[in-house]
Amino acid sequence: MKITIIGTGLIGGSMALTLRANSLAASIIGVESNPTHAATAIERGIVDEILPLEDAVRKADVIIISIPVDSTEKLVPQILSLLNDNQVVMDVGSNKKAVCDIVSSHEKRGRFVATHPMWGTEYSGPAAAKSDGFAGNAVVICNREQSDKDAVKVVLKIYETLQMKIVFMNAGAHDIHAAYVSHISHITSFALANTVLEKEKEESAIFEMASGGFESTVRLAKSNPDMWLPIFRQNRENVLDVLNEHIAQLKKFRSCFEKDNYEYMRNLMENANKIKRIIK
Amino acid sequence: MKITIIGTGLIGGSMALTLRANSLAASIIGVESNPTHAATAIERGIVDEILPLEDAVRKADVIIISIPVDSTEKLVPQILSLLNDNQVVMDVGSNKKAVCDIVSSHEKRGRFVATHPMWGTEYSGPAAAKSDGFAGNAVVICNREQSDKDAVKVVLKIYETLQMKIVFMNAGAHDIHAAYVSHISHITSFALANTVLEKEKEESAIFEMASGGFESTVRLAKSNPDMWLPIFRQNRENVLDVLNEHIAQLKKFRSCFEKDNYEYMRNLMENANKIKRIIK
Repeated sequence: MKITIIGTGLIGGSMALTLRANSLAASIIGVESNPTHAATAIERGIVDEILPLEDAVRKADVIIISIPVDSTEKLVPQILSLLNDNQVVMDVGSNKKAVCDIVSSHEKRGRFVATHPMWGTEYSGPAAAKSDGFAGNAVVICNREQSDKDAVKVVLKIYETLQMKIVFMNAGAHDIHAAYVSHISHITSFALANTVLEKEKEESAIFEMASGGFESTVRLAKSNPDMWLPIFRQNRENVLDVLNEHIAQLKKFRSCFEKDNYEYMRNLMENANKIKRIIK
Repeated sequence: MKITIIGTGLIGGSMALTLRANSLAASIIGVESNPTHAATAIERGIVDEILPLEDAVRKADVIIISIPVDSTEKLVPQILSLLNDNQVVMDVGSNKKAVCDIVSSHEKRGRFVATHPMWGTEYSGPAAAKSDGFAGNAVVICNREQSDKDAVKVVLKIYETLQMKIVFMNAGAHDIHAAYVSHISHITSFALANTVLEKEKEESAIFEMASGGFESTVRLAKSNPDMWLPIFRQNRENVLDVLNEHIAQLKKFRSCFEKDNYEYMRNLMENANKIKRIIK
Protein backbone atom coordinates (compact mmCIF):
# COMPACT_ATOMS: atom_id res chain seq x y z
CA MET A 1 0.00 0.00 0.00
CA LYS A 2 1.40 3.38 -0.98
CA ILE A 3 0.59 5.96 1.66
CA THR A 4 0.84 9.73 1.62
CA ILE A 5 0.83 11.51 4.96
CA ILE A 6 -0.09 15.17 4.87
CA GLY A 7 1.38 16.62 8.03
CA THR A 8 4.22 14.59 9.53
CA GLY A 9 3.62 15.64 13.14
CA LEU A 10 2.73 13.63 16.23
CA ILE A 11 -0.28 11.78 14.80
CA GLY A 12 0.73 11.53 11.13
CA GLY A 13 4.30 10.66 12.07
CA SER A 14 3.23 8.06 14.60
CA MET A 15 0.90 6.45 12.07
CA ALA A 16 3.67 6.31 9.51
CA LEU A 17 6.10 4.72 11.97
CA THR A 18 3.56 2.12 13.05
CA LEU A 19 2.31 1.25 9.55
CA ARG A 20 5.86 0.87 8.33
CA ALA A 21 6.86 -1.26 11.33
CA ASN A 22 3.92 -3.54 10.50
CA SER A 23 4.79 -3.64 6.79
CA LEU A 24 1.40 -2.31 5.72
CA ALA A 25 3.04 0.65 4.02
CA ALA A 26 5.24 -0.24 1.05
CA SER A 27 6.26 3.39 0.74
CA ILE A 28 5.34 6.56 2.57
CA ILE A 29 5.39 10.01 1.00
CA GLY A 30 5.19 13.08 3.22
CA VAL A 31 3.71 16.48 2.53
CA GLU A 32 5.12 18.95 5.02
CA SER A 33 5.19 22.73 4.87
CA ASN A 34 7.53 23.14 7.84
CA PRO A 35 11.11 22.55 6.57
CA THR A 36 12.44 21.57 10.01
CA HIS A 37 9.66 19.01 10.40
CA ALA A 38 10.29 17.76 6.86
CA ALA A 39 13.97 17.19 7.68
CA THR A 40 13.13 15.41 10.94
CA ALA A 41 10.54 13.22 9.20
CA ILE A 42 13.14 12.08 6.67
CA GLU A 43 15.84 11.68 9.29
CA ARG A 44 13.64 9.53 11.54
CA GLY A 45 12.49 7.38 8.64
CA ILE A 46 8.89 8.52 9.07
CA VAL A 47 8.64 9.17 5.32
CA ASP A 48 10.71 8.09 2.33
CA GLU A 49 10.45 11.44 0.61
CA ILE A 50 8.76 14.81 0.84
CA LEU A 51 6.80 15.84 -2.25
CA PRO A 52 4.54 18.71 -3.25
CA LEU A 53 0.86 18.10 -2.47
CA GLU A 54 -0.44 17.18 -5.95
CA ASP A 55 2.42 14.80 -6.74
CA ALA A 56 2.09 13.15 -3.37
CA VAL A 57 -1.65 12.69 -3.76
CA ARG A 58 -1.37 11.29 -7.28
CA LYS A 59 1.16 8.65 -6.25
CA ALA A 60 -0.75 7.28 -3.25
CA ASP A 61 -3.33 4.57 -2.67
CA VAL A 62 -4.30 6.19 0.62
CA ILE A 63 -3.89 9.80 1.73
CA ILE A 64 -3.89 10.48 5.46
CA ILE A 65 -4.53 14.10 6.44
CA SER A 66 -3.09 14.91 9.85
CA ILE A 67 -2.98 18.68 10.09
CA PRO A 68 -4.98 21.17 12.22
CA VAL A 69 -8.77 20.79 11.79
CA ASP A 70 -9.30 24.18 10.14
CA SER A 71 -6.79 23.34 7.40
CA THR A 72 -8.26 19.84 7.09
CA GLU A 73 -11.68 21.30 6.39
CA LYS A 74 -10.22 23.25 3.45
CA LEU A 75 -7.98 20.50 2.13
CA VAL A 76 -10.32 17.50 2.02
CA PRO A 77 -12.56 18.83 -0.82
CA GLN A 78 -9.47 19.85 -2.84
CA ILE A 79 -7.94 16.41 -2.47
CA LEU A 80 -11.21 14.63 -3.26
CA SER A 81 -11.31 16.49 -6.57
CA LEU A 82 -7.89 15.05 -7.43
CA LEU A 83 -8.74 11.42 -6.67
CA ASN A 84 -9.53 8.53 -8.98
CA ASP A 85 -12.11 5.91 -7.95
CA ASN A 86 -9.60 3.63 -6.29
CA GLN A 87 -7.88 6.14 -4.05
CA VAL A 88 -8.95 6.87 -0.48
CA VAL A 89 -8.50 9.95 1.67
CA MET A 90 -8.98 9.95 5.43
CA ASP A 91 -8.52 12.58 8.10
CA VAL A 92 -7.62 12.09 11.76
CA GLY A 93 -8.92 15.35 13.25
CA SER A 94 -10.45 15.88 16.69
CA ASN A 95 -13.76 17.16 15.29
CA LYS A 96 -15.79 15.32 12.72
CA LYS A 97 -18.96 17.30 11.94
CA ALA A 98 -17.38 20.28 10.15
CA VAL A 99 -15.36 18.15 7.76
CA CYS A 100 -18.25 15.75 7.09
CA ASP A 101 -20.61 18.67 6.43
CA ILE A 102 -18.26 20.35 4.01
CA VAL A 103 -17.83 17.28 1.81
CA SER A 104 -21.37 15.94 2.13
CA SER A 105 -22.39 16.87 -1.41
CA HIS A 106 -18.97 16.46 -3.04
CA GLU A 107 -19.16 14.19 -6.08
CA LYS A 108 -16.29 12.09 -4.69
CA ARG A 109 -17.66 12.00 -1.08
CA GLY A 110 -17.48 8.20 -1.08
CA ARG A 111 -13.69 8.23 -1.28
CA PHE A 112 -13.40 10.10 2.06
CA VAL A 113 -13.46 8.40 5.45
CA ALA A 114 -13.75 10.60 8.55
CA THR A 115 -11.78 9.20 11.51
CA HIS A 116 -10.54 10.21 14.93
CA PRO A 117 -7.96 7.99 16.59
CA MET A 118 -8.27 8.72 20.33
CA TRP A 119 -4.62 8.98 21.20
CA GLY A 120 -2.15 11.81 21.48
CA THR A 121 0.29 13.38 23.87
CA GLU A 122 1.00 16.95 24.91
CA TYR A 123 3.92 17.02 22.49
CA SER A 124 3.83 17.80 18.77
CA GLY A 125 5.92 17.52 15.62
CA PRO A 126 7.67 14.51 14.04
CA ALA A 127 10.21 14.43 16.87
CA ALA A 128 7.35 13.40 19.19
CA ALA A 129 6.09 10.62 16.90
CA LYS A 130 6.16 7.10 18.34
CA SER A 131 5.04 3.72 17.15
CA ASP A 132 3.44 2.33 20.30
CA GLY A 133 0.80 4.94 21.14
CA PHE A 134 -2.30 3.83 19.28
CA ALA A 135 -2.56 0.19 20.32
CA GLY A 136 -5.50 -0.53 22.62
CA ASN A 137 -7.12 2.89 22.23
CA ALA A 138 -10.34 3.63 20.36
CA VAL A 139 -10.69 5.11 16.90
CA VAL A 140 -14.02 6.64 15.94
CA ILE A 141 -15.12 6.35 12.32
CA CYS A 142 -17.92 8.77 11.49
CA ASN A 143 -20.77 8.76 8.99
CA ARG A 144 -19.55 5.47 7.59
CA GLU A 145 -22.64 5.16 5.34
CA GLN A 146 -21.42 8.16 3.32
CA SER A 147 -18.13 6.48 2.47
CA ASP A 148 -17.72 3.81 -0.20
CA LYS A 149 -17.52 0.31 1.25
CA ASP A 150 -14.11 -0.39 -0.24
CA ALA A 151 -12.78 2.89 1.15
CA VAL A 152 -13.98 2.00 4.65
CA LYS A 153 -12.40 -1.42 4.25
CA VAL A 154 -8.99 0.12 3.53
CA VAL A 155 -9.27 2.42 6.54
CA LEU A 156 -10.33 -0.44 8.81
CA LYS A 157 -7.26 -2.36 7.65
CA ILE A 158 -5.09 0.58 8.69
CA TYR A 159 -6.64 0.88 12.14
CA GLU A 160 -6.54 -2.86 12.70
CA THR A 161 -2.83 -2.67 11.92
CA LEU A 162 -2.57 0.10 14.52
CA GLN A 163 -4.41 -2.27 16.90
CA MET A 164 -7.10 0.24 17.68
CA LYS A 165 -10.66 -0.53 18.86
CA ILE A 166 -13.02 0.56 16.12
CA VAL A 167 -16.16 2.52 17.06
CA PHE A 168 -18.71 3.81 14.53
CA MET A 169 -20.54 7.01 15.34
CA ASN A 170 -22.47 9.87 13.85
CA ALA A 171 -20.22 12.92 13.39
CA GLY A 172 -22.44 15.20 15.50
CA ALA A 173 -22.53 12.72 18.39
CA HIS A 174 -18.76 12.30 18.12
CA ASP A 175 -18.17 16.01 18.55
CA ILE A 176 -20.31 16.15 21.69
CA HIS A 177 -18.49 13.20 23.24
CA ALA A 178 -15.10 14.57 22.20
CA ALA A 179 -15.93 17.82 24.02
CA TYR A 180 -16.50 15.79 27.21
CA VAL A 181 -13.70 13.27 27.06
CA SER A 182 -10.97 15.32 25.44
CA HIS A 183 -11.53 19.01 24.71
CA ILE A 184 -12.64 20.06 28.22
CA SER A 185 -9.62 18.28 29.74
CA HIS A 186 -7.39 20.52 27.66
CA ILE A 187 -9.26 23.70 28.62
CA THR A 188 -9.11 22.88 32.35
CA SER A 189 -5.45 22.07 32.05
CA PHE A 190 -4.62 25.34 30.24
CA ALA A 191 -6.66 27.24 32.83
CA LEU A 192 -5.04 25.44 35.74
CA ALA A 193 -1.57 26.22 34.43
CA ASN A 194 -2.54 29.88 34.15
CA THR A 195 -3.96 29.81 37.69
CA VAL A 196 -0.68 28.56 39.08
CA LEU A 197 1.52 30.76 36.87
CA GLU A 198 -0.57 33.81 37.76
CA LYS A 199 -0.42 33.50 41.51
CA GLU A 200 2.68 31.52 42.24
CA LYS A 201 5.39 34.09 41.93
CA GLU A 202 7.80 32.00 43.95
CA GLU A 203 8.39 29.60 41.13
CA SER A 204 11.10 27.73 42.95
CA ALA A 205 8.50 26.47 45.42
CA ILE A 206 6.41 25.01 42.59
CA PHE A 207 9.48 23.47 41.03
CA GLU A 208 10.32 21.78 44.26
CA MET A 209 6.87 20.75 45.40
CA ALA A 210 5.05 19.87 42.18
CA SER A 211 4.58 16.12 42.08
CA GLY A 212 2.61 13.51 40.17
CA GLY A 213 -0.89 14.78 40.90
CA PHE A 214 -0.12 18.28 39.73
CA GLU A 215 1.76 17.09 36.69
CA SER A 216 -1.09 14.81 35.77
CA THR A 217 -3.66 17.61 35.77
CA VAL A 218 -1.53 20.26 34.01
CA ARG A 219 0.48 18.26 31.51
CA LEU A 220 -2.04 18.94 28.72
CA ALA A 221 -1.32 22.66 29.19
CA LYS A 222 1.88 22.00 27.25
CA SER A 223 -0.24 21.22 24.16
CA ASN A 224 0.28 23.13 20.93
CA PRO A 225 -2.13 26.07 20.39
CA ASP A 226 -1.76 25.69 16.59
CA MET A 227 -3.51 22.38 16.88
CA TRP A 228 -5.91 23.04 19.77
CA LEU A 229 -7.19 26.53 19.01
CA PRO A 230 -8.82 25.38 15.72
CA ILE A 231 -10.35 22.39 17.54
CA PHE A 232 -11.90 24.58 20.24
CA ARG A 233 -13.08 27.10 17.68
CA GLN A 234 -14.64 24.54 15.38
CA ASN A 235 -16.34 22.67 18.24
CA ARG A 236 -17.31 25.93 19.93
CA GLU A 237 -20.94 25.09 20.77
CA ASN A 238 -20.18 21.76 22.42
CA VAL A 239 -17.07 22.92 24.24
CA LEU A 240 -18.90 25.98 25.56
CA ASP A 241 -21.73 23.78 26.92
CA VAL A 242 -19.27 21.54 28.73
CA LEU A 243 -17.23 24.49 29.97
CA ASN A 244 -20.36 26.07 31.43
CA GLU A 245 -21.21 22.84 33.19
CA HIS A 246 -17.66 22.51 34.48
CA ILE A 247 -17.66 26.05 35.89
CA ALA A 248 -21.01 25.26 37.55
CA GLN A 249 -19.48 22.13 39.13
CA LEU A 250 -16.50 24.12 40.43
CA LYS A 251 -18.89 26.70 41.86
CA LYS A 252 -20.58 23.94 43.84
CA PHE A 253 -17.25 23.30 45.55
CA ARG A 254 -16.78 27.03 46.10
CA SER A 255 -20.22 27.34 47.61
CA CYS A 256 -19.44 24.45 50.00
CA PHE A 257 -16.35 26.30 51.20
CA GLU A 258 -18.20 29.58 51.55
CA LYS A 259 -21.04 28.00 53.51
CA ASP A 260 -18.83 25.55 55.39
CA ASN A 261 -21.07 22.82 54.02
CA TYR A 262 -18.67 19.88 54.15
CA GLU A 263 -21.41 17.30 54.12
CA TYR A 264 -22.41 18.40 50.63
CA MET A 265 -18.77 18.61 49.61
CA ARG A 266 -18.41 14.97 50.64
CA ASN A 267 -21.41 14.11 48.44
CA LEU A 268 -19.73 15.86 45.51
CA MET A 269 -16.51 13.93 46.08
CA GLU A 270 -18.27 10.60 46.50
CA ASN A 271 -20.17 11.21 43.28
CA ALA A 272 -16.92 12.03 41.49
CA ASN A 273 -15.49 8.74 42.75
CA LYS A 274 -17.95 7.02 40.38
CA ILE A 275 -15.53 7.88 37.58
CA LYS A 276 -13.81 4.65 38.76
CA ARG A 277 -16.40 2.81 36.71
CA ILE A 278 -15.13 4.52 33.59
CA ILE A 279 -11.37 4.75 34.03
CA LYS A 280 -9.62 1.87 35.70
CA MET B 1 15.40 1.98 64.65
CA LYS B 2 12.03 0.90 66.06
CA ILE B 3 9.25 2.57 64.15
CA THR B 4 5.55 2.86 64.89
CA ILE B 5 3.26 3.77 62.02
CA ILE B 6 -0.11 5.16 62.98
CA GLY B 7 -2.32 4.54 59.96
CA THR B 8 -1.08 1.80 57.64
CA GLY B 9 -2.61 3.25 54.47
CA LEU B 10 -1.04 4.43 51.22
CA ILE B 11 1.54 6.80 52.76
CA GLY B 12 2.22 5.08 56.07
CA GLY B 13 2.29 1.67 54.40
CA SER B 14 4.58 2.84 51.62
CA MET B 15 6.97 4.37 54.14
CA ALA B 16 7.04 1.16 56.13
CA LEU B 17 7.75 -0.93 53.03
CA THR B 18 10.54 1.39 51.90
CA LEU B 19 12.18 1.79 55.30
CA ARG B 20 12.12 -1.95 55.83
CA ALA B 21 13.53 -2.62 52.35
CA ASN B 22 16.40 -0.27 53.21
CA SER B 23 16.96 -1.84 56.62
CA LEU B 24 16.44 1.42 58.47
CA ALA B 25 13.56 -0.10 60.43
CA ALA B 26 14.55 -2.95 62.75
CA SER B 27 10.90 -3.48 63.60
CA ILE B 28 7.67 -1.79 62.61
CA ILE B 29 4.59 -1.64 64.79
CA GLY B 30 1.29 -0.59 63.28
CA VAL B 31 -1.66 1.19 64.85
CA GLU B 32 -4.72 0.66 62.72
CA SER B 33 -8.39 1.09 63.59
CA ASN B 34 -9.70 -0.54 60.41
CA PRO B 35 -9.53 -4.37 60.93
CA THR B 36 -9.38 -5.10 57.19
CA HIS B 37 -6.49 -2.69 56.77
CA ALA B 38 -4.78 -4.17 59.83
CA ALA B 39 -5.01 -7.66 58.32
CA THR B 40 -3.69 -6.44 54.95
CA ALA B 41 -0.83 -4.58 56.64
CA ILE B 42 0.26 -7.77 58.44
CA GLU B 43 -0.25 -9.92 55.37
CA ARG B 44 1.83 -7.64 53.13
CA GLY B 45 4.61 -7.40 55.70
CA ILE B 46 4.05 -3.68 56.12
CA VAL B 47 4.10 -4.07 59.91
CA ASP B 48 5.28 -6.82 62.23
CA GLU B 49 2.37 -6.43 64.60
CA ILE B 50 -0.64 -4.27 65.32
CA LEU B 51 -0.78 -2.84 68.84
CA PRO B 52 -2.99 -0.42 70.75
CA LEU B 53 -1.89 3.21 70.52
CA GLU B 54 -0.19 3.66 73.89
CA ASP B 55 1.75 0.39 73.72
CA ALA B 56 2.84 1.14 70.17
CA VAL B 57 4.01 4.64 71.09
CA ARG B 58 5.90 3.48 74.18
CA LYS B 59 7.85 0.86 72.24
CA ALA B 60 9.00 3.09 69.37
CA ASP B 61 11.99 5.34 68.73
CA VAL B 62 10.05 7.16 66.03
CA ILE B 63 6.29 7.49 65.60
CA ILE B 64 5.01 8.32 62.11
CA ILE B 65 1.44 9.62 61.99
CA SER B 66 -0.17 8.99 58.62
CA ILE B 67 -3.89 9.49 59.11
CA PRO B 68 -6.30 12.20 57.88
CA VAL B 69 -5.22 15.73 58.85
CA ASP B 70 -8.14 16.40 61.18
CA SER B 71 -7.29 13.32 63.26
CA THR B 72 -3.60 14.19 63.11
CA GLU B 73 -4.31 17.56 64.64
CA LYS B 74 -5.95 15.87 67.63
CA LEU B 75 -3.46 13.05 67.99
CA VAL B 76 -0.11 14.86 67.89
CA PRO B 77 -0.55 16.68 71.26
CA GLN B 78 -1.72 13.43 72.92
CA ILE B 79 1.28 11.52 71.64
CA LEU B 80 3.71 14.29 72.57
CA SER B 81 2.49 13.99 76.16
CA LEU B 82 3.43 10.30 76.16
CA LEU B 83 6.98 10.77 74.84
CA ASN B 84 10.29 10.69 76.63
CA ASP B 85 13.11 13.01 75.56
CA ASN B 86 14.60 10.58 73.07
CA GLN B 87 11.51 9.71 71.10
CA VAL B 88 10.40 11.56 68.00
CA VAL B 89 6.96 11.98 66.45
CA MET B 90 6.42 13.18 62.89
CA ASP B 91 3.32 13.61 60.74
CA VAL B 92 3.03 13.39 56.97
CA GLY B 93 -0.16 15.39 56.40
CA SER B 94 -0.97 17.63 53.42
CA ASN B 95 -1.40 20.74 55.59
CA LYS B 96 1.16 21.95 58.05
CA LYS B 97 -0.07 25.15 59.70
CA ALA B 98 -2.94 23.68 61.77
CA VAL B 99 -0.82 20.96 63.32
CA CYS B 100 2.12 23.30 63.96
CA ASP B 101 -0.18 25.87 65.58
CA ILE B 102 -1.81 23.36 67.87
CA VAL B 103 1.47 22.07 69.32
CA SER B 104 3.32 25.38 69.32
CA SER B 105 3.19 25.79 73.10
CA HIS B 106 3.26 22.11 74.02
CA GLU B 107 6.01 21.39 76.56
CA LYS B 108 7.29 18.59 74.30
CA ARG B 109 7.02 20.60 71.04
CA GLY B 110 10.67 19.90 70.25
CA ARG B 111 10.02 16.18 69.82
CA PHE B 112 7.60 16.83 66.93
CA VAL B 113 8.69 17.31 63.31
CA ALA B 114 6.09 18.51 60.81
CA THR B 115 6.61 16.98 57.36
CA HIS B 116 4.84 16.59 54.04
CA PRO B 117 6.26 14.09 51.56
CA MET B 118 4.98 15.24 48.15
CA TRP B 119 3.95 11.90 46.77
CA GLY B 120 0.72 9.94 46.63
CA THR B 121 -1.64 8.27 44.22
CA GLU B 122 -5.40 8.29 43.79
CA TYR B 123 -5.58 4.99 45.66
CA SER B 124 -5.69 4.45 49.41
CA GLY B 125 -5.24 1.77 52.06
CA PRO B 126 -2.37 -0.66 52.69
CA ALA B 127 -3.20 -2.59 49.50
CA ALA B 128 -2.10 0.51 47.54
CA ALA B 129 1.20 0.90 49.44
CA LYS B 130 4.36 0.60 47.35
CA SER B 131 8.04 0.99 48.01
CA ASP B 132 9.14 2.94 44.95
CA GLY B 133 6.93 6.04 45.09
CA PHE B 134 8.85 8.53 47.21
CA ALA B 135 12.25 8.49 45.51
CA GLY B 136 13.08 11.67 43.65
CA ASN B 137 10.11 13.65 44.97
CA ALA B 138 10.28 16.50 47.46
CA VAL B 139 9.49 16.41 51.16
CA VAL B 140 8.75 19.66 52.93
CA ILE B 141 9.82 19.99 56.55
CA CYS B 142 8.10 22.86 58.29
CA ASN B 143 9.01 25.13 61.19
CA ARG B 144 12.23 23.21 61.70
CA GLU B 145 13.44 25.71 64.31
CA GLN B 146 10.67 24.58 66.66
CA SER B 147 11.86 20.98 66.59
CA ASP B 148 14.83 19.68 68.59
CA LYS B 149 17.94 19.28 66.46
CA ASP B 150 18.28 15.58 67.20
CA ALA B 151 14.62 15.03 66.28
CA VAL B 152 15.12 16.76 62.92
CA LYS B 153 18.23 14.66 62.37
CA VAL B 154 16.28 11.42 62.81
CA VAL B 155 13.58 12.61 60.41
CA LEU B 156 16.15 13.67 57.82
CA LYS B 157 17.69 10.21 58.04
CA ILE B 158 14.27 8.70 57.26
CA TYR B 159 13.67 10.93 54.25
CA GLU B 160 17.18 10.43 52.96
CA THR B 161 16.49 6.70 53.12
CA LEU B 162 13.31 7.34 51.10
CA GLN B 163 15.55 9.26 48.64
CA MET B 164 13.44 12.39 48.84
CA LYS B 165 14.62 15.94 48.14
CA ILE B 166 14.42 17.87 51.38
CA VAL B 167 12.91 21.37 51.41
CA PHE B 168 12.54 23.53 54.51
CA MET B 169 9.62 25.92 54.68
CA ASN B 170 7.43 27.91 57.00
CA ALA B 171 4.15 26.05 57.67
CA GLY B 172 1.97 28.91 56.45
CA ALA B 173 3.90 29.22 53.19
CA HIS B 174 3.73 25.47 52.73
CA ASP B 175 -0.07 25.49 52.95
CA ILE B 176 -0.36 28.21 50.30
CA HIS B 177 1.93 26.34 47.91
CA ALA B 178 0.18 23.03 48.62
CA ALA B 179 -3.14 24.65 47.66
CA TYR B 180 -1.60 25.53 44.28
CA VAL B 181 0.38 22.43 43.44
CA SER B 182 -1.81 19.76 44.96
CA HIS B 183 -5.16 20.69 46.49
CA ILE B 184 -6.57 22.60 43.48
CA SER B 185 -5.63 19.71 41.16
CA HIS B 186 -7.83 17.46 43.24
CA ILE B 187 -10.76 19.92 43.25
CA THR B 188 -10.62 20.38 39.48
CA SER B 189 -10.41 16.66 38.98
CA PHE B 190 -13.42 15.96 41.24
CA ALA B 191 -15.36 18.73 39.44
CA LEU B 192 -14.37 17.47 35.99
CA ALA B 193 -15.51 13.95 36.85
CA ASN B 194 -18.86 15.35 38.00
CA THR B 195 -19.14 17.41 34.80
CA VAL B 196 -18.73 14.33 32.66
CA LEU B 197 -20.87 12.06 34.85
CA GLU B 198 -23.62 14.68 34.96
CA LYS B 199 -23.98 15.21 31.25
CA GLU B 200 -22.71 12.08 29.61
CA LYS B 201 -25.62 9.73 30.01
CA GLU B 202 -24.34 7.48 27.24
CA GLU B 203 -21.63 6.03 29.37
CA SER B 204 -20.60 3.52 26.78
CA ALA B 205 -19.34 6.36 24.60
CA ILE B 206 -17.09 7.61 27.41
CA PHE B 207 -15.87 4.13 28.08
CA GLU B 208 -14.91 3.70 24.48
CA MET B 209 -13.51 7.13 23.75
CA ALA B 210 -11.81 8.14 26.99
CA SER B 211 -8.06 8.05 26.45
CA GLY B 212 -4.87 9.22 28.09
CA GLY B 213 -5.63 12.94 28.23
CA PHE B 214 -8.96 12.46 29.94
CA GLU B 215 -7.63 9.87 32.32
CA SER B 216 -4.75 12.14 33.24
CA THR B 217 -7.02 15.02 34.23
CA VAL B 218 -9.67 12.99 36.08
CA ARG B 219 -7.68 10.26 37.77
CA LEU B 220 -7.41 12.26 41.01
CA ALA B 221 -11.23 12.17 41.18
CA LYS B 222 -10.83 8.60 42.39
CA SER B 223 -9.19 9.94 45.56
CA ASN B 224 -10.57 9.06 48.96
CA PRO B 225 -12.93 11.71 50.48
CA ASP B 226 -11.99 10.56 54.00
CA MET B 227 -8.50 11.86 53.36
CA TRP B 228 -9.23 14.83 51.11
CA LEU B 229 -12.26 16.42 52.73
CA PRO B 230 -10.32 17.19 55.95
CA ILE B 231 -7.45 18.61 53.87
CA PHE B 232 -9.76 20.96 51.93
CA ARG B 233 -11.57 21.95 55.12
CA GLN B 234 -8.43 22.65 57.10
CA ASN B 235 -6.79 24.60 54.28
CA ARG B 236 -10.08 26.32 53.42
CA GLU B 237 -8.76 29.89 53.05
CA ASN B 238 -5.95 29.02 50.67
CA VAL B 239 -7.91 26.53 48.62
CA LEU B 240 -10.78 28.98 48.25
CA ASP B 241 -8.39 31.67 46.99
CA VAL B 242 -6.94 29.34 44.38
CA LEU B 243 -10.36 28.03 43.42
CA ASN B 244 -11.60 31.57 42.84
CA GLU B 245 -8.59 32.28 40.67
CA HIS B 246 -9.11 29.05 38.75
CA ILE B 247 -12.78 29.83 38.08
CA ALA B 248 -11.70 33.29 36.88
CA GLN B 249 -9.20 31.67 34.49
CA LEU B 250 -11.87 29.31 33.12
CA LYS B 251 -14.19 32.28 32.66
CA LYS B 252 -11.54 33.92 30.48
CA PHE B 253 -11.78 30.94 28.14
CA ARG B 254 -15.57 31.11 28.28
CA SER B 255 -15.53 34.78 27.44
CA CYS B 256 -13.27 34.10 24.44
CA PHE B 257 -15.80 31.58 23.12
CA GLU B 258 -18.72 33.91 23.74
CA LYS B 259 -17.02 36.82 22.00
CA ASP B 260 -15.33 34.70 19.33
CA ASN B 261 -12.07 36.22 20.50
CA TYR B 262 -9.66 33.50 19.39
CA GLU B 263 -6.68 35.80 19.39
CA TYR B 264 -6.98 36.24 23.14
CA MET B 265 -7.66 32.53 23.55
CA ARG B 266 -4.36 31.88 21.78
CA ASN B 267 -2.63 34.22 24.24
CA LEU B 268 -4.14 32.28 27.14
CA MET B 269 -2.92 28.99 25.67
CA GLU B 270 0.55 30.32 24.91
CA ASN B 271 0.83 31.62 28.44
CA ALA B 272 -0.25 28.22 29.80
CA ASN B 273 2.50 26.61 27.70
CA LYS B 274 4.99 28.29 30.07
CA ILE B 275 4.21 25.52 32.52
CA LYS B 276 6.83 23.60 30.48
CA ARG B 277 9.40 25.48 32.53
CA ILE B 278 8.04 23.87 35.67
CA ILE B 279 7.09 20.35 34.66
CA LYS B 280 9.31 18.56 32.21
